[in-house]
Amino acid sequence: MPAASFNSAVQSLDLPPIPMVHQWASTYDGTKGPSLDLSQAVPGYAPPQILLDWLGEASASPKYTGYGPIEGEPTLRSAYAAHVSEVYGRDIGSSQIHITSGCNQAFIATVMAIAGAGDSVLLSNPFYFNHATTLSMLGIHCKSFDLLERNGFIPTLEDLEAALDPSVKAVMLVSPNNPTGAIYPADWLQSAFELCRKKGVWLILDETYRDFLPLDMAQPHPLFQNQDWSENFIQLYSFSKSFCIPGHRLGAVIAGEKAVLEIAKVMDNLQICAPRPPQIAIAKALPQLGDWRHQNRLEIAARAATLETVMAPLDKFHIASIGSYFSYIRHGFDGVSAIEIAQQLSQQYGVTPLPGTFFGADQAQYLRFAFANVDQTSLKLLTDRLGSFQHK
Amino acid sequence: MPAASFNSAVQSLDLPPIPMVHQWASTYDGTKGPSLDLSQAVPGYAPPQILLDWLGEASASPKYTGYGPIEGEPTLRSAYAAHVSEVYGRDIGSSQIHITSGCNQAFIATVMAIAGAGDSVLLSNPFYFNHATTLSMLGIHCKSFDLLERNGFIPTLEDLEAALDPSVKAVMLVSPNNPTGAIYPADWLQSAFELCRKKGVWLILDETYRDFLPLDMAQPHPLFQNQDWSENFIQLYSFSKSFCIPGHRLGAVIAGEKAVLEIAKVMDNLQICAPRPPQIAIAKALPQLGDWRHQNRLEIAARAATLETVMAPLDKFHIASIGSYFSYIRHGFDGVSAIEIAQQLSQQYGVTPLPGTFFGADQAQYLRFAFANVDQTSLKLLTDRLGSFQHK
Repeated sequence: MPAASFNSAVQSLDLPPIPMVHQWASTYDGTKGPSLDLSQAVPGYAPPQILLDWLGEASASPKYTGYGPIEGEPTLRSAYAAHVSEVYGRDIGSSQIHITSGCNQAFIATVMAIAGAGDSVLLSNPFYFNHATTLSMLGIHCKSFDLLERNGFIPTLEDLEAALDPSVKAVMLVSPNNPTGAIYPADWLQSAFELCRKKGVWLILDETYRDFLPLDMAQPHPLFQNQDWSENFIQLYSFSKSFCIPGHRLGAVIAGEKAVLEIAKVMDNLQICAPRPPQIAIAKALPQLGDWRHQNRLEIAARAATLETVMAPLDKFHIASIGSYFSYIRHGFDGVSAIEIAQQLSQQYGVTPLPGTFFGADQAQYLRFAFANVDQTSLKLLTDRLGSFQHK
Repeated sequence: MPAASFNSAVQSLDLPPIPMVHQWASTYDGTKGPSLDLSQAVPGYAPPQILLDWLGEASASPKYTGYGPIEGEPTLRSAYAAHVSEVYGRDIGSSQIHITSGCNQAFIATVMAIAGAGDSVLLSNPFYFNHATTLSMLGIHCKSFDLLERNGFIPTLEDLEAALDPSVKAVMLVSPNNPTGAIYPADWLQSAFELCRKKGVWLILDETYRDFLPLDMAQPHPLFQNQDWSENFIQLYSFSKSFCIPGHRLGAVIAGEKAVLEIAKVMDNLQICAPRPPQIAIAKALPQLGDWRHQNRLEIAARAATLETVMAPLDKFHIASIGSYFSYIRHGFDGVSAIEIAQQLSQQYGVTPLPGTFFGADQAQYLRFAFANVDQTSLKLLTDRLGSFQHK
């Protein structure tokens, strides 16, 4: 009897990295002090009580137990449209919003609406690993351009253009970047948009960490100010980080109405609609919790500053890049893989970063620190912990 | 400038049918009496207050705001494993459970774990439309075997075997069936399982309507009693219908541990994990709301009996099949498409079924009635409404 077989494109995927590093961390015996989880990008503080109340109310209501509209609750689509109109200084309508269950789903729904097996999508190297695994499992070729330390991990337009062969349907950018934390400059993003426009290629921009941009940045980018941006630009976002509710699963897409229509067809097959109660709660939270979110932006900026201070004295761990939420750390153990360093740090020193190796080729000298997870008091422990690190 | 283009496999999909028929229904002027929505398979009654309380409590708790395990909350996996062990009379472990955001997601995650673009999956004709659109958008070939009224809409093994060419990775069955309501006999399912086993093909069985089986059925089927069932059998389920919470998006897969591992890789890319608060609430509800669910099973059975009574006097609308949740109705307007009949019924008579046409080829003489949506008092209105129907 032949055994029933799996999809080789899925079977060949690596296991999801977060559970793997949590497994490492679980074997740390506590001898160096409290465990510092710098691995997963989750806010290291709780959502405000009023938001928990709203979530509870909406979930307990019989009004939201039935199916909702595929594209999202009208109240959230219009609240988010109003919010992003203010963020980007350009009128964005609720018909240009599609709600999803988190930003991974925003990505897969968008990319499926654009590309099929045999097409190509451009990712940076390093990339956000779920983008790469999503493309692989869909049979979409993943082509890439480099993010290099000497360029501040900002891609060059030349590299981007060189990678744009005719099989490419979309260019995927992440800013603020995961894993490097780098913030792509507004004029660079505008040039990338123009290049994609010229080539008839979609530009997809994941701005999951938009709410943690430095305080001196007025706007994340000017792309929505382009006439007809909706012809080749799609923007992705997550409510998880900003509102500290990843467990409720909520994200959003901004796209032209034609793209929203195609994304809705995909979403209907992925899960009909995002869960309704958190949509109702976040529609209330968007206009009302601006101050609370601003305080978090200040706090994450302060954590970034603290990380810079605590890393400064170290010989073997250098900040290669730091921005919103993440810092990309270069280790000084030549020829030693970041996986080995990360595993030893996690199991023996109670410090759990993600190895750069998870984010692409030639990243073995880097570690990703999701510093936003950890409060300043705990970050200060890093000087001693990392300073005392001895490889094997 | 070339325009950025969409995925033709998505662009060529029809629009999701439910919003389209809701659009029809919205133009009904009420002259014939209250609108009867027989279109979407949603319970026509509210969840119990205690479940709403549990949903509210879990959503308001700071304990579930972070990411959860990809495969689902341990508490729900073990509660559901205990429940299905009882339902099927065979020990099923929590490691054989994967939680999803509803049963559409259970299907796409399972089918992606098994098949890629260019492979084939067998569906019945008629089929549940999201199964067909999901396969199409993934570039998976959809091959089919017929469900015929003269066979009680049960497939024949001969037809199934004839359709099983070497490109087929999986056979998809739905029992109780959507759209026909037909319940596949236990011995037929066992034979289909053995055929798939012999061919090295997966059997995927969607049992979304399992909790509404006739009261005299002891077990839905004996498939879990096969030694090594996990080598080629995967079972799908939705908590939406039984607990009246489609808006919270929750479903489940039962599969072998190897399959759960592959499905988890897909789920990580689809949305990391299902929303957590409803998982916590349903883990409580499964062991505690058995009586309430039994009452609903009685009520849906009573609705089925009422539908048979009210349809009996009609000349132009005949019950071709009736089972759990759905009845498949043959209309007597020869040569007139079910779409035309359904649209006119919806807009002018306040009765909204789904046309059989949405469910596959050669279904233009059928309408699907989701009778479980409508209480018995309202169902009794159908004799006059349908009896007075005049085509154009």
